[in-house]
Amino acid sequence: MTRSNLPLDAGRLWSDIMALADITDPARPYTRRSFTARFLEGRAWLAERFVQAGLTTRIDTAGNLIGRIEGRNAALGVIAVGSHSDTVPSGGRFDGIAGVATGLEIARALRDSGTRLDHSFEIIDFLAEEPSEYGLSCVGSRGMTGSLDDKMLDLAEPGGEKLRDALRRVGGDPDRLPEARRNDIHAFLELHIEQGIVLESQSLDVGVVSSIVGIRRLEIIFEGEADHAGTTPLHLRRDALVAAASTVGAVRNIAERLDSEGPDYFVATVGILAVDPSASNIVPGRCTMIVDVRTTNPALTERFVAALDHESQAAATAARVRRGAFVTLSDGPPVACDPTLQAVLRRAAHDLGLTRTDLPSGAGHDAAFMSRICRSAMVFVPCRAGKSHAPEEWADQDAVAAGAAVILHAVKALDQSLQQA
Amino acid sequence: MTRSNLPLDAGRLWSDIMALADITDPARPYTRRSFTARFLEGRAWLAERFVQAGLTTRIDTAGNLIGRIEGRNAALGVIAVGSHSDTVPSGGRFDGIAGVATGLEIARALRDSGTRLDHSFEIIDFLAEEPSEYGLSCVGSRGMTGSLDDKMLDLAEPGGEKLRDALRRVGGDPDRLPEARRNDIHAFLELHIEQGIVLESQSLDVGVVSSIVGIRRLEIIFEGEADHAGTTPLHLRRDALVAAASTVGAVRNIAERLDSEGPDYFVATVGILAVDPSASNIVPGRCTMIVDVRTTNPALTERFVAALDHESQAAATAARVRRGAFVTLSDGPPVACDPTLQAVLRRAAHDLGLTRTDLPSGAGHDAAFMSRICRSAMVFVPCRAGKSHAPEEWADQDAVAAGAAVILHAVKALDQSLQQA
Repeated sequence: MTRSNLPLDAGRLWSDIMALADITDPARPYTRRSFTARFLEGRAWLAERFVQAGLTTRIDTAGNLIGRIEGRNAALGVIAVGSHSDTVPSGGRFDGIAGVATGLEIARALRDSGTRLDHSFEIIDFLAEEPSEYGLSCVGSRGMTGSLDDKMLDLAEPGGEKLRDALRRVGGDPDRLPEARRNDIHAFLELHIEQGIVLESQSLDVGVVSSIVGIRRLEIIFEGEADHAGTTPLHLRRDALVAAASTVGAVRNIAERLDSEGPDYFVATVGILAVDPSASNIVPGRCTMIVDVRTTNPALTERFVAALDHESQAAATAARVRRGAFVTLSDGPPVACDPTLQAVLRRAAHDLGLTRTDLPSGAGHDAAFMSRICRSAMVFVPCRAGKSHAPEEWADQDAVAAGAAVILHAVKALDQSLQQA
Repeated sequence: MTRSNLPLDAGRLWSDIMALADITDPARPYTRRSFTARFLEGRAWLAERFVQAGLTTRIDTAGNLIGRIEGRNAALGVIAVGSHSDTVPSGGRFDGIAGVATGLEIARALRDSGTRLDHSFEIIDFLAEEPSEYGLSCVGSRGMTGSLDDKMLDLAEPGGEKLRDALRRVGGDPDRLPEARRNDIHAFLELHIEQGIVLESQSLDVGVVSSIVGIRRLEIIFEGEADHAGTTPLHLRRDALVAAASTVGAVRNIAERLDSEGPDYFVATVGILAVDPSASNIVPGRCTMIVDVRTTNPALTERFVAALDHESQAAATAARVRRGAFVTLSDGPPVACDPTLQAVLRRAAHDLGLTRTDLPSGAGHDAAFMSRICRSAMVFVPCRAGKSHAPEEWADQDAVAAGAAVILHAVKALDQSLQQA
């Protein structure tokens, strides 16, 4: 493939990604946490770019930023392209943003080539795809697919603000959430960096995602007694951190055992462990930990949770503390991407002369929730050393443009083929 | 003993303790962290009470608040009584404060009874006895005893402020620190709640402290790689928390082994464990932990550190992370209280008709540092269920007054006996 033959402007797409990356917490690039002022600044910039590209923009009641071009035949419904513009703390410049910018560049490429689709076309910047301070990920795509319930809206960040109130702050409306649920979208396509090393190691241009791991998040709380670290003999302690530390080890051991069984993908991680009161001379009275479990086989999640239930209870008993909570915060099952869309994406890559493979996604994506309401599929582009969720996250300009071109090609093909379906 | 016969005003002493307790971070009583505005508010209140009691007040270059009554014979030097007015987060109303208020009540009792000592008398409110955000405890008593070095002054809190600058903020002067070192104090007495259950369980009025544990604080840092928790296979991870959690277990196991050897007292605690970046979908890239080690036998500390050095390195290797630091933050050896002062305190308790025992202190105290420059000893008063460093910390009014009376009695006795020494 000669990249200069791509039916879109690679440089323009790239400059959007870089411009959005500049809207970061300066103390820890690249950080644009959902619900923050910085996040809203990024969205304001995006919305302006949407308008410049000829789209009408709105924020739905689930807090998603949506840009839209009306189709020639509104009755046909919507083909949508999108991802998210929020980041993890000290994250990268591509995770999420590349997919939103791809939607924007496709809209401009269609306009520049005088192409008007029969379907309406939408770009969706989903709210809070990354786990937020409220303990939930994919807030916007949950909302758009009827998967955001009252219990989730009542989740609170450490400062006490509830998710429902945070949603209001960013332009959503928790009281009118059902209005965000869509039945007029007929295909959703998302471009994303792979966040793994398959494409890079095989020097492939794009990956067509076959399935997306299921993600379950558990919260475990150990409640002991915050005693004086000098005057409390070891045998009288109720040290919550001793139980939590043992449980961190159990998470790793159980995960390694399940993963080694093959052929399914399985990982589990403790990324958050908070100690209270957190003073060097006080025995920890309370520990909260979040366990993130991902697999392509939901049966493994059940086995993992059963084993961890047992081991964490044993750890609590051994440390003489109470296991105050062992609860599921969120649970998304594995999702197979739509076979029809996958075929269209493969064909697009072929027509563009791009090399590709099919591969599963170890990361969750908004596309997984979108599959609940419409055909949904993803294109991965290679990223350097598989690094993601870190400042050194990197994808080449040509690589992103190639993936975007596959999606543009697929959008045009779907605009015709969906009418025949 | 009839408590109403005590040679001081128990109600006045009690009301000072309660008034100072009211000066707290309202969101988490009882919190008056050193170097905060609330701490300075407490000190301003104390200084005013000192002045009302007829003392001259100053802050020395190590940030200690000192109230003084000149003796009839200034050449005899100083007898000092004190403790600290800072607290741990969500601490109690007595730890430290009871000892400072005791000094204040003794000054008033001396004045009320028309007693003028030959020695000068000082009340010392030591700066930052509790571990502060700068990772050091006993800042003021270190400073007064020539034990606060440049390396300690360069310790920084998470926001980046150095201890030397914080010291300036509270009225000290790090550039003139040697001026805080004293050679004119000839006896130091400290009243403190026991923070244990010996006195309560034996229904004793007071404890005369025989020795104070040595405290070593270690910082261990594990440096791994902050990878995506979904796309990074287990065998490729460098998870800093896995190494830290294993080390928490090692701290407990080694401590239990050493403690079980008897007869020495031995405890070790991980009270702080910080995970970075702390997001549920990111493999922890960095973990910092503080280990607090206390014993009456310094040889056990050496054995503990050697074993933990080995185990934490093994944990790092197993988790494929780097042990970026294994350093001593502070190290205070065990201290035997002065035998002469202990005898005077025992005699005072006897003369007042109080029941008592001798006991070691599992907690560190400013008195341990003071023993480097003068005779130093402590009186413990019983506290409910041994609870300390917690809002439910409690000592009865009579119990505090009885301990204070022992110290007042001892001060008067020492004013004579030290002249004969």
